[in-house]
Amino acid sequence: MKRCCIIVAGGQGLRMGGDTPKQFLPLGDKTILMHSICRFHEFDPDMKIIVVLPREHIGEWESQIQKYSFSIEHNVVAGGKERFYSVKAGLEQAENESIIAIHDGVRPFVSQETIKRCFKEAERTGMAIPFVEPNDSVRIQREYDTVSVPRKDVRLIQTPQVFRSELIKGAYQTGYDAMFTDDASVAEAAGHKVNLVPGNRENIKVTRPEDIIIARAIYATNFK
Amino acid sequence: MKRCCIIVAGGQGLRMGGDTPKQFLPLGDKTILMHSICRFHEFDPDMKIIVVLPREHIGEWESQIQKYSFSIEHNVVAGGKERFYSVKAGLEQAENESIIAIHDGVRPFVSQETIKRCFKEAERTGMAIPFVEPNDSVRIQREYDTVSVPRKDVRLIQTPQVFRSELIKGAYQTGYDAMFTDDASVAEAAGHKVNLVPGNRENIKVTRPEDIIIARAIYATNFK
Repeated sequence: MKRCCIIVAGGQGLRMGGDTPKQFLPLGDKTILMHSICRFHEFDPDMKIIVVLPREHIGEWESQIQKYSFSIEHNVVAGGKERFYSVKAGLEQAENESIIAIHDGVRPFVSQETIKRCFKEAERTGMAIPFVEPNDSVRIQREYDTVSVPRKDVRLIQTPQVFRSELIKGAYQTGYDAMFTDDASVAEAAGHKVNLVPGNRENIKVTRPEDIIIARAIYATNFK
Repeated sequence: MKRCCIIVAGGQGLRMGGDTPKQFLPLGDKTILMHSICRFHEFDPDMKIIVVLPREHIGEWESQIQKYSFSIEHNVVAGGKERFYSVKAGLEQAENESIIAIHDGVRPFVSQETIKRCFKEAERTGMAIPFVEPNDSVRIQREYDTVSVPRKDVRLIQTPQVFRSELIKGAYQTGYDAMFTDDASVAEAAGHKVNLVPGNRENIKVTRPEDIIIARAIYATNFK
């Protein structure tokens, strides 16, 4: 089956508190976004790779490609204001592929095993969403207080979220909803049961300034 | 105010899948448990430190102390079958201290800022429980399916959980309940409102085999 990966790098870097969008931060010999692209290219060098970026960042991305002599072929698409619109723009470029992975550009440590597991399961059932269980106790904020939730019932959701093409394209025919924090929630709203598979713990989302410390540490130990 | 720290290292290493309980695994020049102890000794060298271990691990701990020439003074107490009983045994040794921190022996990366914040807030209000927000989307398992929870409402709970002595000693007068996954839940069952303060993201709980990879990475970058 022909595979495609949409890598969404729409972040404005606001939560990181700096001027540089977090996907553009260096991590060893590449930027975070380049590492994320490499993971999928490693898995299947024939996979079509679509990178969705805010229009105003495309120039910066092109100069980074020059600077780092980054040679993995990919299409660049201008994204929208919300992640939902960015994925939608990416899906329009996925024309002939039967399985589509949607991945956060700021998850550079997804393992080959996780990618393989997600594609295999999505080919079989239509959808595969990777997760890990938290090691911490979990509480949920209610109106005036927090309540405890059994840790064994909690799933921390990662990407790549992988789907059969017709399923996810159909689901994205809907309008934007603030509840859509990921692609699983869009598929769910279209009536599909969310199918979870194990992810890998190093597959963190580099979101806040402190995450960079952990990301550099994981990179230094595992990828250098 | 006199401070005390109870470090609970009751794990049998079952989730780690090995024979060595995870608190005894090496991390650079010390074991994980020794690093956890050091963080509190660094914060306040006069703080009383009580280490709770399963009775059958005390011999191993003593030989590790010799092997690593570990010199930070501490009391060793034999723990119980559940974390609840281990903390209870530790609390009995905290006699003259007015503020008590309870910390997981397998959280070697708690920051000085987190420890300071927790003690300060517990002195002021009676209780301080550190947390971080997840970067991932979160789903909760229900009977047949999982449901999405807004990420901004989720709190991943860490340690040290710090309390005024009379509050936590009073709360632990109760009987064991399987819902008691941490000390905040014991205090809550006794009618106290759980008071959360920011933790630090590197303060992970080393629980599963994969966590060791991340732990070694954080250690190499931040503590070497």
